Parts: sequence; C-alpha cells; structure tokens
Amino acid sequence: MINIGIFGATGYTGFETVKLMRKHPAVQLVFATSESSAGGNLHDLYPVDWDIPLIAAADAPLDKVEAVFCCLPHGASMPAVIAARQANVRVIDLSADFRLNDSQIYQKWYGLPHASPDLLPTSVYGLTEIYRTKIKETNLLANPGCYPTTILLALYPLLQANLLEPSAPIIADSKSGISGAGRKATLKTHFVEVNENLSPYNIGQTHRHVAEIVQLINELGGVGDALIFSPHLVPISRGMLSTVYVSLNRDFTAETVQQLYTATYAAQPMVWVLPSGQLATMAHTQHTNLAALSVTLVKPRQLVICSTIDNLGKGAAGQAIQNFNVMFGLTEDLGLV
Amino acid sequence: MINIGIFGATGYTGFETVKLMRKHPAVQLVFATSESSAGGNLHDLYPVDWDIPLIAAADAPLDKVEAVFCCLPHGASMPAVIAARQANVRVIDLSADFRLNDSQIYQKWYGLPHASPDLLPTSVYGLTEIYRTKIKETNLLANPGCYPTTILLALYPLLQANLLEPSAPIIADSKSGISGAGRKATLKTHFVEVNENLSPYNIGQTHRHVAEIVQLINELGGVGDALIFSPHLVPISRGMLSTVYVSLNRDFTAETVQQLYTATYAAQPMVWVLPSGQLATMAHTQHTNLAALSVTLVKPRQLVICSTIDNLGKGAAGQAIQNFNVMFGLTEDLGLV
Amino acid sequence: MINIGIFGATGYTGFETVKLMRKHPAVQLVFATSESSAGGNLHDLYPVDWDIPLIAAADAPLDKVEAVFCCLPHGASMPAVIAARQANVRVIDLSADFRLNDSQIYQKWYGLPHASPDLLPTSVYGLTEIYRTKIKETNLLANPGCYPTTILLALYPLLQANLLEPSAPIIADSKSGISGAGRKATLKTHFVEVNENLSPYNIGQTHRHVAEIVQLINELGGVGDALIFSPHLVPISRGMLSTVYVSLNRDFTAETVQQLYTATYAAQPMVWVLPSGQLATMAHTQHTNLAALSVTLVKPRQLVICSTIDNLGKGAAGQAIQNFNVMFGLTEDLGLV
Amino acid sequence: MINIGIFGATGYTGFETVKLMRKHPAVQLVFATSESSAGGNLHDLYPVDWDIPLIAAADAPLDKVEAVFCCLPHGASMPAVIAARQANVRVIDLSADFRLNDSQIYQKWYGLPHASPDLLPTSVYGLTEIYRTKIKETNLLANPGCYPTTILLALYPLLQANLLEPSAPIIADSKSGISGAGRKATLKTHFVEVNENLSPYNIGQTHRHVAEIVQLINELGGVGDALIFSPHLVPISRGMLSTVYVSLNRDFTAETVQQLYTATYAAQPMVWVLPSGQLATMAHTQHTNLAALSVTLVKPRQLVICSTIDNLGKGAAGQAIQNFNVMFGLTEDLGLV
Repeated sequence: MINIGIFGATGYTGFETVKLMRKHPAVQLVFATSESSAGGNLHDLYPVDWDIPLIAAADAPLDKVEAVFCCLPHGASMPAVIAARQANVRVIDLSADFRLNDSQIYQKWYGLPHASPDLLPTSVYGLTEIYRTKIKETNLLANPGCYPTTILLALYPLLQANLLEPSAPIIADSKSGISGAGRKATLKTHFVEVNENLSPYNIGQTHRHVAEIVQLINELGGVGDALIFSPHLVPISRGMLSTVYVSLNRDFTAETVQQLYTATYAAQPMVWVLPSGQLATMAHTQHTNLAALSVTLVKPRQLVICSTIDNLGKGAAGQAIQNFNVMFGLTEDLGLV
Repeated sequence: MINIGIFGATGYTGFETVKLMRKHPAVQLVFATSESSAGGNLHDLYPVDWDIPLIAAADAPLDKVEAVFCCLPHGASMPAVIAARQANVRVIDLSADFRLNDSQIYQKWYGLPHASPDLLPTSVYGLTEIYRTKIKETNLLANPGCYPTTILLALYPLLQANLLEPSAPIIADSKSGISGAGRKATLKTHFVEVNENLSPYNIGQTHRHVAEIVQLINELGGVGDALIFSPHLVPISRGMLSTVYVSLNRDFTAETVQQLYTATYAAQPMVWVLPSGQLATMAHTQHTNLAALSVTLVKPRQLVICSTIDNLGKGAAGQAIQNFNVMFGLTEDLGLV
Repeated sequence: MINIGIFGATGYTGFETVKLMRKHPAVQLVFATSESSAGGNLHDLYPVDWDIPLIAAADAPLDKVEAVFCCLPHGASMPAVIAARQANVRVIDLSADFRLNDSQIYQKWYGLPHASPDLLPTSVYGLTEIYRTKIKETNLLANPGCYPTTILLALYPLLQANLLEPSAPIIADSKSGISGAGRKATLKTHFVEVNENLSPYNIGQTHRHVAEIVQLINELGGVGDALIFSPHLVPISRGMLSTVYVSLNRDFTAETVQQLYTATYAAQPMVWVLPSGQLATMAHTQHTNLAALSVTLVKPRQLVICSTIDNLGKGAAGQAIQNFNVMFGLTEDLGLV
Repeated sequence: MINIGIFGATGYTGFETVKLMRKHPAVQLVFATSESSAGGNLHDLYPVDWDIPLIAAADAPLDKVEAVFCCLPHGASMPAVIAARQANVRVIDLSADFRLNDSQIYQKWYGLPHASPDLLPTSVYGLTEIYRTKIKETNLLANPGCYPTTILLALYPLLQANLLEPSAPIIADSKSGISGAGRKATLKTHFVEVNENLSPYNIGQTHRHVAEIVQLINELGGVGDALIFSPHLVPISRGMLSTVYVSLNRDFTAETVQQLYTATYAAQPMVWVLPSGQLATMAHTQHTNLAALSVTLVKPRQLVICSTIDNLGKGAAGQAIQNFNVMFGLTEDLGLV
C-alpha cells in the first residue's frame, strides 16, 4: 500500500480525488487538508457517510506519505508543492502552478511571481498519452487543465505527424459543465444565472488555459499562436466537449484520417476513438476517466474533431490518478475503471 | 399615468417588478434603487437592453411618486416603507416586514425588533382574492410570501366554509424553484449543488413563512397550529407547487368538493381551478400571474389540493402589481396578462 | 464465478444491471436479451465501449446460468420467469409480476390475468432489510418497486414496533426522477415537457405501486388502506425522495424517535439513518445503492420521514444485486459499493 | 383587425404563434388546425386556459382570413400553402418548403419533389433585416430556419461589405435548445438522454439548414461552399447560440469591426449589437424576438461573432409575426415586445 495525502480536499477536484482514492486498491489515504474546514470532517461538507478528518495544510504529516495530490487553486498550490518536494515526497499537482516551463509566462498569465522557478525544469506535464515515459520518472507531475486535455488529445495525432497547415487557425470551440468553475459561490455559478442559459466567455487568447495549450502545440511542432479558443459554460454539472476545427496540409479521406487517429491511440487505454460515423458526446465519458474522440472530415483538408472528457475525471482527478499509477509502476487504470 | 418608484430593483423580485412595470400601460417608472449598484444601470446586472439608472435609496425622489414597491429583504424594507409613508406615498411592500400583525411575533421569527409597530395596524395582507375590499383602501400593502400564497389559496374555500377537521394536521408539502432563494450567491444556490438534486429544508414549523400562514389560518377561523409545512428546493429556476393534505369535517364527493372550489374562485380572474380529473403542475402558471388549483378527494373526508404559482409572478412581483391595480382602481390584471 | 443472464438489458433498469454486473467480482455475464435489438450489441444503444451481444429471450441459454435478472416490463416478465424456474434457474424479477401474493389483486391493478398463480407462493418480496432470511432461501425473488422501497423503509421501524395511529392517514408525498418512467419515448418524458416543470400524477390510491405498499403495510401489522400516495415527476435524471407524514400512537421526543430508527437499521449496511438535525436529499444516495432516512418529529405524535434512494440503485438494479448477493451467500454489498 | 388562421397549431412553433397572436392588438384568430387533434381544443394539449378549437386543415375557412401562418413540417406545408395562395390569402410559411429558389435543390435536401415549383419565384426569404423591402410586397413569405437566422445575421455585415476572405472556411458552431427538435416524442428528445448531455450532430454540410444558409451566402456575394456547420443539442428548452469564426480580407481593429456591426444594424429594431467587450448569451434573447450579436476580433483578420436568438422567437414564431407586421404595414414589433 502506498501512503498518500491530499491537499485541498474540499473543492470539487479534491473531493473527486478523495472519492476515487477511497477505493483505490493500492492506496492508503493518510491525510486530507482544508484551510477553511480544518478540524472538521469531509462529511460535514458533502452528503456522504465517509469519515475523512480534515487538517490544516501546515499540519500535514509529510513524513508519513510517499505521494501527495495538490488540489489547491493556483498560487496556493506552490507552498504545498515546495514543502512536499523538500520532504522528498512525490507530487501530483492539479493546479496550473507547474504546468508552464517559463516563470515569466506564468507571471504574465497568473498575475503573480512564481515562488519556485528552480522546480519548473523538474516538472512533467501530465498528459499521460503524450508524456508517459517522462511521467514514470518524475517526482513532480503537473496535471493538465481540463480544456487543454480535450484540445491537445484532439490535435496530437496531427501534430505528431506534422499534418496541420501552419498558416491556418486552430479553432477550439469548447463547452464545459459548471463544476469546472469550482465550488466557490459566485453569481457566475448561481443556479438561476446558469440554468437554461449558455454563455461564451474569454474568447480568443484570453483564457488562462491558452498558455499551456500554446506551449504544448509549440513543443509538439505546431504553431501555438494559431489557436483561437472559445470556452462556453453549459447548464450541466460535469462534462466537457471541445469541437476542434483544423486545416490540414495535405488531402485526406475519411478513412485515412480515421486510421490516423485509431492508430495513434490504439495502445492508449484511456482514449476511445469512436468508429467512423459516430460523434463524441458528453455522455460517452461522464463519470469515467475516458477521453472520447470523433473525427469528421468535411473537406479533403478540413477536419472537425469532437473531443470529450469528464472535467472531473480525465480533466482533473481521474487523470491525476492515472498519472500517479504510471509514476508508481501500477496498472494505468487501477482504481479508475 | 401613475408615477412609481421601486426600492431594491436588482434582486430577482425587484427585477421582475421592473420588467412588468416597464410595460404597464398606466404607469411611469420614476426611480429604481440599489445600494450595491447605485450610480450604475440595471443593464449592467442583467442581459437586457433597457436603460434603468440605479440610485441609492436615500436619494429616492419620494415627492415625485404616488406609489412605491419595496423589493428589499426583511429588515431593510422597514426604513424605506417608513420614509414613503411619511411622504404620504402609498406602499406595496414585498418583504415580510408588515405581514404580521404582532410586532412580538415579528421579532420572534425575524430576530430583530420591529422599527415601526404603529404602522402595523394600517397594513393589509395582500392576498388579493381574500382581502380585495381592504386592499382598495389601504396605503400600506404587505404582499404575501410565495409559499403562503399557494397554501392559503388551497385552504381558503375550506376555511371560509368551516370545513376543516380541527383536530387533524394541515400538511403542506411545498416545492420551490431556486429563484425563491434570492440572487445572493451561496453554496445553497450553486448550480452543482442544486442541479440533479431535490432537498427538503426547515420541516415542521420552522420556516419563517409559517408565521404568516398560521396568522391567516387563525384569522380565517382555522387552527393555525395544525400546520405542518415542508418546503423543498427543486432544480427549476421559477415555479412553486404545494401539495396540501387536509381532513374534512364532513363527507364530500369529488363533485361537491370540485363545486366548492369552482364557486369560491368563479369571480377571481387570477385563480384557475382546473377541471375535475386534471392536476396542477408548475407549467400551468410559469411566466404568468395565475394560481392554478386542482382538488383530488381521495376519501370522503380526505382531500389533496395541488396549488401552483410562479414564485416571481403570483408569488411576488405579479401579485404586487395585482394589488397595486386594485389599490389604484385599475383593472385587476392590467399589465399582467 | 456465478453465471448469470439478464432479460431485458436495454431499458434503463436492464442497462444499470449490466453496468453493475460487468464489474461484480463473483459474476460472469453469460447472456443479455432484447427483443427489439436482438442480433445487435448494447453499445449500439448506449454510449459505452462494452461488447455485450444482445439475443432474443427465446434463445437464452438457460442451461448455462445459475441465476437470471428479469428487467422486463410487467406482463412481459412472466414468461421469462416461468421458463427460468422450469429450467431450475434462480430468478431475480425486477418487474411487478411476482410482488403481489394474490393473483386477483394482480389482475385488478395490472389489467391482465396472472400467467402463473402457482409460482406466487414461492416468491419472496425483496426488501432486503425486512425479508433477508427468506431471501436467502428463495429461488424467485420479486424485487420491490422504487416508490415502495422509499416508503416502506420509512415506515418499517414504526410498523415493526406498532407505533402508528391506526385511524390516521399515512401520507407519502414522493418525488421521482424521470428514468423511473422508463426509456420509451413519450410526450411525458419529452425534455421540453419535463424540464423546468414539476408535476403530480396518480394522487391517492391510483398508482400501481399502491398495491404492493398496501400489501406490505398490512403484512407488517399496519392499516394499508390508510395510505395516501402522491407521486410527482421532477426534472432530474435519477433519484427519488419520499416525504412521509405519519401520526404516532404515543408521545415521542426527537431523541427517542431518532434512536428507534438508528437502532432498527444499525446492522443494515445499505440503510443510512442521518444524524439528528440533518435532512435526507437526493444527493445523499445518487449513484449508490444506499437508502438515506431522516426523521423530524414536528409534534410529540407527528413525524415526518424523508426517505431517499437512487431509483435505479436501491430502487431497482442495485437492490436486485443486493438480493442476489444474499441469495448466493455473498457479502451483501459485493459489487455495489 | 386582420383575420388570420394558423395551420399546425399544436407543435411548439404553432403553439408559440398562437400564444403571441392571442395578444396581437391588430389580429383576430379565426381558425387553428391540427390533423391529429381536430375536434379537440388547444387546452387539451397544453396547460393553458385558452379556448382555441382545433379543426382539420381541410375544413379551414380560407375565405374568412387575409393571412395564414403555416406551422407544419416540410412537405406537409406545401398543400396548405398552395390552397391558401389559390384562395388569394397571404401566406407566412414557417416550414422549409418555400425557402429554396431551386426545386431541384429542394428535392436533393428534403428527399421529395417540390409540389409547386411555380410558386417558388414568388416567395421571399423572410430574414426581415435583409429583405424588408421585398417582404412588404410579397404574398408568400418563407420564414427562415432558426440556425440560418443566427448565422446569416452574424455574417450579413461582412457579406454586404465584401469583407470575407473567400478562400477561408466559414465555421458556425451552433448550440440549440431542445424545442428546436419539435414536440414529437423520440429517444433523441427523451429527458434522460438529453439532460446532463451535450451532443453534436450532422457536422459539416449535412444538416438540412445548410441549403438555405449556402443559398443566402451566395446571394449576398459570398462563397456558400465555404460553410462548415456544426449543430449541437444542449439541455435547454429554448434558446440558440451560434459561435461563428471567419477570416477577413483586410485588417481590422476591435473598434472598426464593432462600428461595422453597430452601423449595419442601427436601424433594425430586432437586432441588438452588444457593446464592445460583452459576449452574447442565450439569456440575452430568451422569451423575446431579439437577435443579439457580439463581435470579438481575435486577430486583425480573425473575427468571432456570437449570435443568439430564442429559437421559438426570432428563430420561428416571433420572426414570422415580425414579417407579418411588415407585410401588412404594421409597426414591425407590434405584438412582439
């Protein structure tokens, strides 16, 4: 049994991590933290019958665990990660704090200086399907954002094979369930404001997730600056779907593009390329750790990819555990399926 | 044209009042107040193209209006009502501040002393169908709560004819849309907490609306203490349905009880007694000022009444305007249908 | 490994049974039937990547299984049950066909003659918490309806101790998610008709589930005829909550009634009596096999019980598997938690 | 008063037309038809207290009306339109039957021969903002589809000024509420299938609305074949939002593109160009006849337009009445605001 701790256990991502880890057959949950509810119990905050005492992060017994999951907001995550690494504990960080290679870019997007630029070169971006080899070795895993996961999985087969027309925009029209906005009560998450409504926000290159998507597109040989990203909120609790529009640099048939995606992900247990003619919907992945992809060639050089995940599954807690499994040499889907 | 003002225009009730009053053919909206958004405009808070400047309550030109609607929370409403009455302006108060006859009972339920007990005897409880005659004359109308409106309209034909078995409980199982909880962002109104969930709260005689329901039952000759009230929140933006269970003190047939209800409300333009065999649903009244009632006799002395309104219509802003129309001698449904 | 088959695998109940049984550690799924989709595969009907071939019921290899789950509508279930029993296969029937002891009463409520009255005395009503001992021995288990499960678990502690006032009504105001209405496309389940609406139906003693609730109340020493049952549809996919109002035949305190419920269910792994002061909501049980109960004493002899389940969990497939586990001597919650 | 009739009054579009026409101050509703409910009354099908008898289309007294609204499905609409035109009654047809200029193209997309190709040259496509002058004169108005309305209003300022880069795709990522799928009960509109799900369908150039969008783009000087159209269903009763991505043929600034849209629609009472920096959401237009547009320039030649309507308002019944008003010389928004 691997002893683990969870920082920030009371947000939606933290709670989902606890929920999955309670049943993970190779794990013992040693501690769970919450600053606002320290001294309380997780069952005071959620309608569950589990007994999970909550402690302050400062009281976390780092010497008793081999790994920690940091489910804290960006900025708040850095001190916990630094402390854990100093205690030689392996870290899976679900915040944005260690996803960007460049501390200047971090500061630009997140509005605060990075507290530990020296740790950045040691972190690995945890899109498991792309960086599995590095993930096995890392002690500091930066778990991807939910939007980036859908978009990068949609683009990866094309980027890897250098098939994108570099002069054309990469358009990602994304739709997210409301749990992606976090558990904080705001007017933006008020039922009456959200229900029966659908609202775009941060269109173009203004959402913070743009930074990591652009970084990855560039890293994989594409033109990050070509990204046009339009997130939308939809009245759904959990689920995410990105409809991605790209121009290709050579002609394809429906069959050849389908084969490309099928082949790329053939050995990936968590990516499900739908058969030709089917389209990915949120229902394909809700309450799972799967990503589902469908590809529709609308012209020989125009491709539309639908990419869906559960934003709390493959988009957060599920992918974090998938990465944990890889880091510790466990079966990749242990505790997930 | 009657000049009016609206205090507290930015909550759901206030906004609905503005929305209806903009099109009311006999009214000119002179001012709208908001403490938090004074200096701004209603279109900064809601997705509308109306130009409604917002001012502080202290700056309200009471000398320029004949009537005001107070859409403020309880406690906050009292100063506005007092100021308006001192300026000899007629008041429709949508808060609970002037619904209870007894300032001691007010203090018990609302936890603060009443600022103006002397005004209480001048206020009329604005359940239009019951108190229309008094409403015509009053200068201070206390608009009923949403739950009380559904429950009292369900009970009124029985109370009026003294048909309730006094020793039996009066059970009101009520279901409310979320706008009833107000626009304040709280965990209780967070989309993810509310959506796909249904939750009872304040069961028995603990919800504040109990005070006015009990007062009215007693006033109409019944046993207020017999009330058992169970409100539930449902994942719906607007709408309310109370399923009311009562024991009768003599035998009825389905026909005779149907006749009782039909006759009682025959001359009431805003109460719709459904034909025998149909059951009232929220859809019968949403986006209207109607109350819809259905009566189901399950045993000769056991009756189930389903009573439904739009909580922002007949449950708040709509009924307020209905009362305003009565107060000013206008057609009762002017601006409402 | 116990070999099982599932009749009627493509409705919501059948699909949920398949979903749970795929991961049940002691079970091998040998066949799944569907009349309308025989020759197809479950993944043609649901967005899943499972390979579950569908066969006609007539082709079911009953000689290869030890148990079958019948997830067929009432009436359609009888032939499958009869065939399975003739083949000496143990049956868990999720329909209403074997719940009622009396074939005349069956005919009255379900409008068709019972095809096998001789099997009725051999069937056991599968409310696990009440009939566990008999369930262990039976070869024909009649899995309870969803509404009856909520209502009977709410009443059981009172019935068992003979605490109900016999002259008073037993009022069950129930709210159900839409999956309880089945997967058949009807106007009643059309999104636009259901969404943002809440509708009562079949008030009194007219819903078919009344038959089994009344039978059980009588069997447990109560007055079945006292039941007043008001089901309501709510715009939620899965979940059920019954608010049950009863009169007691002696005075209680909040503490003593809480103790009664806690003690009654102390050894029951699937019934969760909430601590005093908390109220059961749908969120307490969704996506689980739990029933959650809260008790609120509103007067010394007036009790309100909130009883919630997932209508596809403890209300159908989950309870069926719980009963299967009991029948086969397995841990009661195996494959369920 | 203008006497009118409504064919197909019981679907969502027909019902909405009745609802608006009941209150239209210049109109008298003479008849409403329904084949399936002839002899009944609209209040048997909807929870309303209106008395609207339903007759068969064959019994419609065309000699008693000046105009008819055809709210029938495509194909079914043609005979009613032909009969009305023969009776010299002016027609507003909400189906697709008279939207396409070319009967061959109609047959290709709708799979049936056109019954009256000779009428096609007399019909005018009723996107009011573009064809108002022709609409005034026409006796046969083809009311646009909901998706085309959002997309064409988004493109019109660019097409009119010849600002689209002809070699680049025109991408419309559209999201529609479920009432757009009609009132027929199908698995696709079943609450449990739709709720908490978001699903793309008919991606590329396969949805039937493509035909009229392409026709109009070409007619307005653009390259219709450049269209890539991706409709999605969202769990919302009514509302539509299209996010439209286009490449421009010259450089713009945020200000100049904002001015272009503001100027184009300055005199249009039903199109609302949001101020710079705001994004159009479904809430901007629900339960209104407005279209709301927001423009976001993401690069000097890359523009994202969000275009929203109520699919039953400006997307169907509302626009039909707007066109009716224009045809009869009434104020354009009469009965609509």
